[in-house]
Amino acid sequence: MMKVIELKRTVTDSNDRDAAQLRANLKRRGIFLLNLMSAPGSGKTTLLSRTIRDLAEKVNIGVMEADIASSVDAAKIHALGAESIQMHTDGMCHVDAGMTRAGIDALAALRSEIVFLENIGNLICPAEFDTGAHKNVMILSLPEGDDKPLKYPLMFQKSDALLITKMDAAPYFDFDLDAAVRRVKALNPSIRIFPVSAKTGLGMDAWESWLLAQWEEWKHA
Amino acid sequence: MMKVIELKRTVTDSNDRDAAQLRANLKRRGIFLLNLMSAPGSGKTTLLSRTIRDLAEKVNIGVMEADIASSVDAAKIHALGAESIQMHTDGMCHVDAGMTRAGIDALAALRSEIVFLENIGNLICPAEFDTGAHKNVMILSLPEGDDKPLKYPLMFQKSDALLITKMDAAPYFDFDLDAAVRRVKALNPSIRIFPVSAKTGLGMDAWESWLLAQWEEWKHA
Repeated sequence: MMKVIELKRTVTDSNDRDAAQLRANLKRRGIFLLNLMSAPGSGKTTLLSRTIRDLAEKVNIGVMEADIASSVDAAKIHALGAESIQMHTDGMCHVDAGMTRAGIDALAALRSEIVFLENIGNLICPAEFDTGAHKNVMILSLPEGDDKPLKYPLMFQKSDALLITKMDAAPYFDFDLDAAVRRVKALNPSIRIFPVSAKTGLGMDAWESWLLAQWEEWKHA
Repeated sequence: MMKVIELKRTVTDSNDRDAAQLRANLKRRGIFLLNLMSAPGSGKTTLLSRTIRDLAEKVNIGVMEADIASSVDAAKIHALGAESIQMHTDGMCHVDAGMTRAGIDALAALRSEIVFLENIGNLICPAEFDTGAHKNVMILSLPEGDDKPLKYPLMFQKSDALLITKMDAAPYFDFDLDAAVRRVKALNPSIRIFPVSAKTGLGMDAWESWLLAQWEEWKHA
């Protein structure tokens, strides 16, 4: 009789367990972990750089950069004086809980109180894996277009907050912000949406206040 | 004794065979197939719409739109009077040769002499699968940044041509075109690079001439 092994199911079950364990472990260690997801080139590193600088006197923020190749992003974060490591995923287009735990263990000093996992630039696979993060945050950059919620619904459904970045480029693109917000809210009524520009600073206050409030709430939960 | 099944290897081998068969079959039927890959929101559909209009008197171009969800892109192409179909990939972030053949078979009239497969918006997985196309074309949109060749090398290596789109937005972004070209050529010295704007028409002539020349060469090969 042929033996059938349900690989996908097993992996997912085990990942969900690993993710829950990692989440609890991070709580004990006082590390608030956010999983940041987006398409390639949406401005994840630029947004994080500005957020780290703006909040430098209030909280230590570390970053784990996940990429297929290169370490340009980790170098940029390191140049700010923040803790950062580069994770290479060996061609895989997602990050799971085991990889996230390895990243946390590799962050040398662990003086970071908030850690961002900058996930692989991809709107599909990363949404399918629980990384063990306490919150999921997604970026949609304005040049990508207001139709993305129609085409990649899962990531919008899985996210606690959505940053719409590169708002300063609005005059150059036919991006309908009202339509984008309506489409996102139809998929996920409780998601918080922040239109921002890390270049001009537009909207950064609202996003950073939300981030600090989520951290406070988590610490006292 | 435990039996080990090399799933990935087997699937890839069979896909390479399927792709070669599809390529030969399309040659007999006189259908020149191009696989168009890029990140989400890079302007694939806008570029194809303009190309279809510009070349309307010279060649019939059809489009197969691959997406996780929605059919907004196929509707846009259909509105131009061109043949188009929508393929849904059931959550998968790539298109293989079998899926491509199913798409070709579903294109109703097949009066198209050139067919574009608009692959899933993703810089990683689509590059790993031979679709059976005669040429691979990639889009990098200017707002994504000039560092993408460093982070997603495989797709640049697999492509015959690269379109750098949204060039009209250059004043709004720190995109170093020379650096981008140098990084791409280091990965793939023979790739053809076309900076374009489908909005203003900048550079479209060079791209469309290349496309027609590739088609002529393929017909007489």
